Amino acid sequence: MIEIINLSKDKPYKIFKNFYDSALIENQKSIEAISIASFNPRKNEVESRFVNLKYIINNEWTFFSNYESPKAMDFSSHSQISALLYWKRLNLQIRLKSKIYKSSKSFSDNHFKNRSIEKNALAISSFQSKETPSYVDVEDSYHKTLKKINIQTARPEYWGGFSFIPYYFEFWQGHENRLNKRHVFEQQDDKWIERILQP
Amino acid sequence: MIEIINLSKDKPYKIFKNFYDSALIENQKSIEAISIASFNPRKNEVESRFVNLKYIINNEWTFFSNYESPKAMDFSSHSQISALLYWKRLNLQIRLKSKIYKSSKSFSDNHFKNRSIEKNALAISSFQSKETPSYVDVEDSYHKTLKKINIQTARPEYWGGFSFIPYYFEFWQGHENRLNKRHVFEQQDDKWIERILQP
Repeated sequence: MIEIINLSKDKPYKIFKNFYDSALIENQKSIEAISIASFNPRKNEVESRFVNLKYIINNEWTFFSNYESPKAMDFSSHSQISALLYWKRLNLQIRLKSKIYKSSKSFSDNHFKNRSIEKNALAISSFQSKETPSYVDVEDSYHKTLKKINIQTARPEYWGGFSFIPYYFEFWQGHENRLNKRHVFEQQDDKWIERILQP
Repeated sequence: MIEIINLSKDKPYKIFKNFYDSALIENQKSIEAISIASFNPRKNEVESRFVNLKYIINNEWTFFSNYESPKAMDFSSHSQISALLYWKRLNLQIRLKSKIYKSSKSFSDNHFKNRSIEKNALAISSFQSKETPSYVDVEDSYHKTLKKINIQTARPEYWGGFSFIPYYFEFWQGHENRLNKRHVFEQQDDKWIERILQP
């Protein structure tokens, strides 16, 4: 599930919400799984991974991560990203483009405070994407942290939200014989320019 | 389904095949859906979209597309891509990085010849990702093409395969409390360097 609060009234958000509600009715699994593609200019490499989208508040989309992870490094040197949802039950892709930035500290603090101790222990104990001798070391480090922390433990500086406000939406619906429907919205000067694309 | 032929015996391919067989047993839907993320240096933009992966032959992965589409333009100016599979039934992501190139003409010809006339009509009639006045125009153009073509119709120059041979694999398996398992293979001088990453 994605926590959707006070959603924007703009047309792409209305279309998004209709599809989201339909996907829920169809019991779409992993509805919050979103691929985030980033670019690292130093490595000259594109990279992508799925994360869990947690919030859409008005027009701002947020997920949480380690701030020293490779994707955080990518965002700090190239802030533009592509995000991609795929809801099989509707045969629907939603393609987004955006700039990305760290969420406010208070927002990250608040989200951290409301997560389970178990999840927070991992956020604290794991140096995301760093090499480890074995999975057993990952488990040991996690269980040591879990013993030490409690409900008062503060969010570590190296973990928090990333937020983005898309400037581009494509709703792509698969149809028979590849006659797919493609509906694009692109923001220009605070207006959404709407287009239909060939499949 | 992905057509897998004479698969490489390298370790990441053996792991891949085990997961693939498990996903089939678990009746994973859209097992061939793969996100391809690309970079366009002129626009300075990352973009991503799902395509259908058609073949893995030895160590070469292939899907088909329009050669004048935006992704084809991206590939021609920045040949490195990130590819991403997600099989919910196994709670598994497979992350790949690679260079991408056009498949051989004979391979594309052969694949085209073996597709349905209906699919080929769309490959011919659609100028992928170009704007159209309406979806009705897309349908009209498709039905006109469908009347004209037959089983002898040759593949158009502007449609064919893209192939890639990954130099990087990550197998990411989700576990309770985010204690995810991450197993990486990176090719260096014809050897696969293996690492375990922190979650």
